[in-house]
Amino acid sequence: MVWKTFGRENCSLEATASIIGDRQTLLVLRESFLRVRRFGEFQRNTGLARNILADRLQALVGNGILERREYQDRPQRFEYRLTQKGLDLYPILLGLMEWGAKYETGKEGTLVTLRHKACGAVGSPQLACPGCGEPVTASDMEALPGRGAVLKTA
Amino acid sequence: MVWKTFGRENCSLEATASIIGDRQTLLVLRESFLRVRRFGEFQRNTGLARNILADRLQALVGNGILERREYQDRPQRFEYRLTQKGLDLYPILLGLMEWGAKYETGKEGTLVTLRHKACGAVGSPQLACPGCGEPVTASDMEALPGRGAVLKTA
Repeated sequence: MVWKTFGRENCSLEATASIIGDRQTLLVLRESFLRVRRFGEFQRNTGLARNILADRLQALVGNGILERREYQDRPQRFEYRLTQKGLDLYPILLGLMEWGAKYETGKEGTLVTLRHKACGAVGSPQLACPGCGEPVTASDMEALPGRGAVLKTA
Repeated sequence: MVWKTFGRENCSLEATASIIGDRQTLLVLRESFLRVRRFGEFQRNTGLARNILADRLQALVGNGILERREYQDRPQRFEYRLTQKGLDLYPILLGLMEWGAKYETGKEGTLVTLRHKACGAVGSPQLACPGCGEPVTASDMEALPGRGAVLKTA
């Protein structure tokens, strides 16, 4: 098992998990993808306490995932929009939604149905090989040590 | 904004986030996808404290994501393997890895390189439309209320 011999320094999965790997942050991001932008709506739709929500929004802004913009000046009010960096979290959010629908809440009654704007197909995007374009799952892919993999010293 | 008028009951994303939405659980799952199976190796590779790791493993077994199997009986020892339900978390783990490599740790030095076993292509699976097969990102997809979406009562 080759992975025994490699360290886990500079792991990109861990980096992401440290930034968005908590339930509250994921709920805030769900709302952002549903185009929710204002504090009160985030609060209503997530059910988070004000202080928790404020903390998560601030962290997401600090990490460049949300952008905070003033939309009113008397009194001063802000809204929160996904940046490109935030929009690129889409595959993760989609994955969470799909897996939950398959195993926990039931496929039949999903909150969201997705449609491809370009071709009009209704259904969720699937993973495909970047080479041949065939659909892939975990067992179709092999994980090899990348250039950043560092051999463990004994 | 249509989503203002719908509740968030029975959200499949929230269901998944409640099960795997914490950093420690995600690190355990990373190891499982790298074929780590034994307690000591999980501990070494994640750096988690014994009690935290034991708790996360137990929860993953309880949720049917990992299966606990005896591999030695004197003294009794167990290993933890991904079930099909666990293997189906692959798109999420892949998404976490990809996003982190793009924005946090740098694409050049990734720990893992993926290869499609069937065609040999090296590279990460991408999201594609289930209808036309074209690659898609967040902005290519539209989120419509699904059959489980419940209108809010005022």
